This record gives sequence, C-alpha cells and structure tokens, in this order.
Amino acid sequence: MATIRDVAVDAGVSVGTVSKVLNNLYVKPGNREKVEASIKKLDYRVNTYARGLKAQQTHTVAILIPDLINPFFAMLVNDVEQVLAALGYRLLLCNSHNNADRELAYLNMARQNKVDGLIALTYSNLDEYLEAGLPVVSIDRHFSRQGICCVSGDNAEGGRLAAQQFIKTGCRNVIYIRNGSNLENETLKRGQAFLEACRKAGLSAEAMDFGEETTLQKEGVRRIHAFLEEIVRDGRCEYDGIFASSDVHAAVILKKLRELGVSVPRQVQLIGYDGLRVLNVGDYVVSSIEQPVQEMAVACADVLLKLIEKKPVESSIILPVRFVDGGTTK
Amino acid sequence: MATIRDVAVDAGVSVGTVSKVLNNLYVKPGNREKVEASIKKLDYRVNTYARGLKAQQTHTVAILIPDLINPFFAMLVNDVEQVLAALGYRLLLCNSHNNADRELAYLNMARQNKVDGLIALTYSNLDEYLEAGLPVVSIDRHFSRQGICCVSGDNAEGGRLAAQQFIKTGCRNVIYIRNGSNLENETLKRGQAFLEACRKAGLSAEAMDFGEETTLQKEGVRRIHAFLEEIVRDGRCEYDGIFASSDVHAAVILKKLRELGVSVPRQVQLIGYDGLRVLNVGDYVVSSIEQPVQEMAVACADVLLKLIEKKPVESSIILPVRFVDGGTTK
Repeated sequence: MATIRDVAVDAGVSVGTVSKVLNNLYVKPGNREKVEASIKKLDYRVNTYARGLKAQQTHTVAILIPDLINPFFAMLVNDVEQVLAALGYRLLLCNSHNNADRELAYLNMARQNKVDGLIALTYSNLDEYLEAGLPVVSIDRHFSRQGICCVSGDNAEGGRLAAQQFIKTGCRNVIYIRNGSNLENETLKRGQAFLEACRKAGLSAEAMDFGEETTLQKEGVRRIHAFLEEIVRDGRCEYDGIFASSDVHAAVILKKLRELGVSVPRQVQLIGYDGLRVLNVGDYVVSSIEQPVQEMAVACADVLLKLIEKKPVESSIILPVRFVDGGTTK
Repeated sequence: MATIRDVAVDAGVSVGTVSKVLNNLYVKPGNREKVEASIKKLDYRVNTYARGLKAQQTHTVAILIPDLINPFFAMLVNDVEQVLAALGYRLLLCNSHNNADRELAYLNMARQNKVDGLIALTYSNLDEYLEAGLPVVSIDRHFSRQGICCVSGDNAEGGRLAAQQFIKTGCRNVIYIRNGSNLENETLKRGQAFLEACRKAGLSAEAMDFGEETTLQKEGVRRIHAFLEEIVRDGRCEYDGIFASSDVHAAVILKKLRELGVSVPRQVQLIGYDGLRVLNVGDYVVSSIEQPVQEMAVACADVLLKLIEKKPVESSIILPVRFVDGGTTK
C-alpha cells in the first residue's frame, strides 16, 4: 500500500506538503493539484502509513508544553494535533505549567514506552530522563543526546528584523525585555542578534531579564510593571524602542505604558514576538515577529514520524519568520 | 489507601474543592487549610485514586472539542488537563475542526474502549455512536442516552444579563447575532432568554442566525461583514445594541463597525459571550458574559470520575456566569 512518502515522491513535493494538503492547510499554487493527483493514482489512504508500523506501537504521541494559556502554544498544539490525526496518530496533551515535578512525571510516562514519540517544548534536561530509543523532537531547544531534532523559527533573524525596524525609524536608545530559561536554547538568539544589530548600527541597546518563568505569571507581571514605573518619569520613557521576548510580554508592557501616559508608537515603539492576533482571528495585538506556527507543527510531525520509522533526520530545522505591523511601530 | 472522596468527606467539602486545592486553583478562604489538613491526616497521595481502579482501565480520557483556536476552548482544555493530571489521568486531545468524519473517527476510538471516558463538546448525535457503557460528560449539550451529564454555564442567565445591560442604558432596538448548531442545546438559551427579556421590557429585539459553524471561519466572517454593511448606512446603524453568541463574533463585529465609522459604545453597544481577555492575560476584548471556565473544567473531571466509578451523577450541572465590562458598553 502506498505511504505518504510514496505520494510525496510521486508528486515531487515534500512529505510536509502532502501533510498540509491532507490537512487543508495552505500550499503553494499548483501543489494541491499535484498531490491530489498522486493520491488518486497511488490509491493512497490516510492511516495506511500508521498501519504499516509494527504492532506494539501505541500510535500515540505526547506533546509536552508549558500550557495552552499562551495562544502561541495553543495554536501550535492545535496544528500538531491536526497533522498527526491525519496520519493516524493520537495526541496526548501534557501541560507542564512550568512545574518540574509534573514535567518529570510526563517524561517518565514517555520513557515507559506508553507513547511512540515525544514533541517537547521544555527546559528540563531530557538527556537525563529519556532512554536513547525514544523518538523526540524538541521545539526551540537543543539537547546533547544524539538524534533529537530541534525545530524552531529563525530566532536570530527575528532579533535582526526587530533591530532593523528600530534602526530605520531613528531609534537611539532601545531595550530587550525577556522572561524564560537561561539554559542554552534557540530563543536566546532573539535577544543576542537584536542587541548585536542595534549596537553595530550605533544605537544604545540594553537587556533586562525577568527570570526563568516560561509563562508570564502574576509575579512576572508585577516585576515588569515595577520596571516600567522606574524607566518612565512624567510620561517620558528612557527608551524609544522596546523589544519583548513574547507578544504576551509586549501586551503587558503596552497596557502599562499607556497607563503611565506614554504614547505608543509616537514616543516609544514596541515589538513583541510570536505574531499573535486578537482572539486568533483579529488584528495583530502588537507589532511583532510572526512565527511560522503551521510550518513548525508540520515539521515536528514529519520529523517525529521519520524517527519512529528509524530514518535519519536533520539535527535542526530552522523556519523563516517575518516582521508584522500591529500598530505599535512607526 | 485514602481516596480523593475520603479527603472531601473528612474536610467537609466537595470533591471539586479538593481537586481545586490539588491544582492550586482558587477556593473559598479557609477551605484550602481544611483540605490540606485532611490530606496530611489521611496520608492521601495523588494517583492512589487512579491506582485503585480496575486494571483494564487505560487511565486515559479523551476530550472532543472543535479546536484550540478559539481561546475559550483552549482555556477549557488547559484546565481539564490540569485537573485530570492531578488525579492520575492522561488527556487525549481530539480536535474535530467541525469535521463530522473526524468526529466520528474519534467517537469510534472512544467506543473501542481505548479511553476510560469522554468529555465532549460536540453537536454530533452521540447516542448513535457510543455504547451505553462509556462514561461521557457533555459540555453545553443534552443527549437522550441515560447517564450523560451535561455541564454548562448558565446560558439563560447570560442572555438575561446582556438584556439588562441594554435595557438599563436605554437601548431601543437590539439584535442577537449568532453562529452554531440549531440542534437542541444549552447555548440556544442565550438568545432565547435575551430576546424574551428585551421584548418584555418593550425593546424591539431581532435575531440573525449565521449558520451551523461552531468555529467562525472565513465564510462566516464574510457573511457577518455583508450583514453589517447592510445595517450601517453613512455611519449610522439600525441597532443601538448588538449581542453576539461569542467573543470571537463580537471581535469581528467590533472591528467591522469601526471600519464603517460607527462609534462603539456611543452609537452602538456590543456584548459578546465567554469573557475572553487579550492574549488571556490582558483586558477583556469586549464587554461580555464571562463563563466560569475553571469551574466547568473541574465539574467535567469530577463528574467523569464518578461515572468511571459507576456512581450516580447529576443529569446537568449549570454554573453561574457574570457580565464583564470590556469598554464596548455604556
């Protein structure tokens, strides 16, 4: 029976493109027709892919993610579920809520072979907890264990795009505000590339780190508020450009700046990260670096299935990002 | 070994309250201390609940939901996962994307005993597809099969609260705009109670139905736009109050009204449904009827576990809602 890979080869496209067609996601003009023709020609049926695998498999994949409160995570899980379902896999949702014990319990479950693979957005040290045999795809994080593929948006490019916006609109004094793990990971490149590009262009560029929480919680919001009260005096802000490590941060910053009487973007420009929209259907919440959520989901599923089939995979897949204007930049 | 129910009895609170303490959710002052004392006294350990059940169980529950794009669904799934994880259950995420075939495939899986229970937000006819033995909790929908408990917010009260807001601020001519299934379900009460209360108070009150889609998609947005272009002429709207069946609808309506030069709330007041906030952390997106998401999640998990234990359950649980001011009402 034909596999999804046979369809891809026959149509002359990637497996990711076939996944997208099966899931009714956007593909380049012409590709849908090619894929549909190959599906018909080869009499490909969704699920034959999964059925061909050995019997002890559970056809279940776990996704380990901080929570679904941040819409970026919710959209990513939504798309991963859609792609995996079309390939005959079920998705176990494992929310860590930044709780190390809970994360460990989930990793334990994965290790005990109750899932065929794991997609993880985590800052725990997977190397310690996972057996070498378990197929793992990591989002935004590298691990030393061989064979874990890292899928991420192009964080360095994201940082540079934010810098370019501030540079070309004449900012002089900018700051990067972040939350999150300081362990070696892809998202650190956002700030590094941003600061480097700004400084190279002669701007004064600083960084402010608000700690390890992946999800912004009450204490994190309080700290950001206190900091903004420090840098804003009588409606004047020390900085004319603020780059935040997520749109959730940027939304918190935007609200507080306006409460403090600062006009955005006239006095201060603000750029977030992720490219989130109001209720996921409206306008961008802030100007932002938009992450390719659908592409990341397709890549995660595609690589994980290759690993389950014991095929070689790339050690990392970096996908393009873009700047989007959400009204908080000039 | 002590069960969660033993803890509840000892502390003199409901199982739901114990779940909330275990999950660090809000409980009434004093209850946390009582529950923690009972946990200590009885040496209760999370998971003993699950371990006490018979061996053929999978300790896996499926949640069938349209998608995670609407933040109301994402928040609900987030909270259900949190409560179930604390009780030793894993959550399979089943997104239907309003696709009947996909829904059927998931119901099939549930029927084949691969999960211990099902939490479903669906408009398919579960009666046809599920065996009588499978524990099912339904959100917002009643089914004829015995033993399916329906958990929902108080939709009739939500409709009346919206009507009260329009009545007390002097609206004369209001409309209810909705999407969604027309099968008998709890959410229909939103519009029914709203229209009845408005008419009783002497307002002109109409309803506009935009079809069956549970999730607002491109075609649904286009239809709403076309309708608004019809009812707005030269910046004047035929109605002075619009009540929408979800915040996602209300956000689409708000944006279009502003594009058409209508001032909200000065000329037209707008109320949505769900009580969603910008990126789930900021201000309310619109004035709305806030649903008790955490309480609904706790009730779903609590009732499902009772069903799994073959204990009697309520046939419906209706939880309180409240009006929240999001700046689109006077």
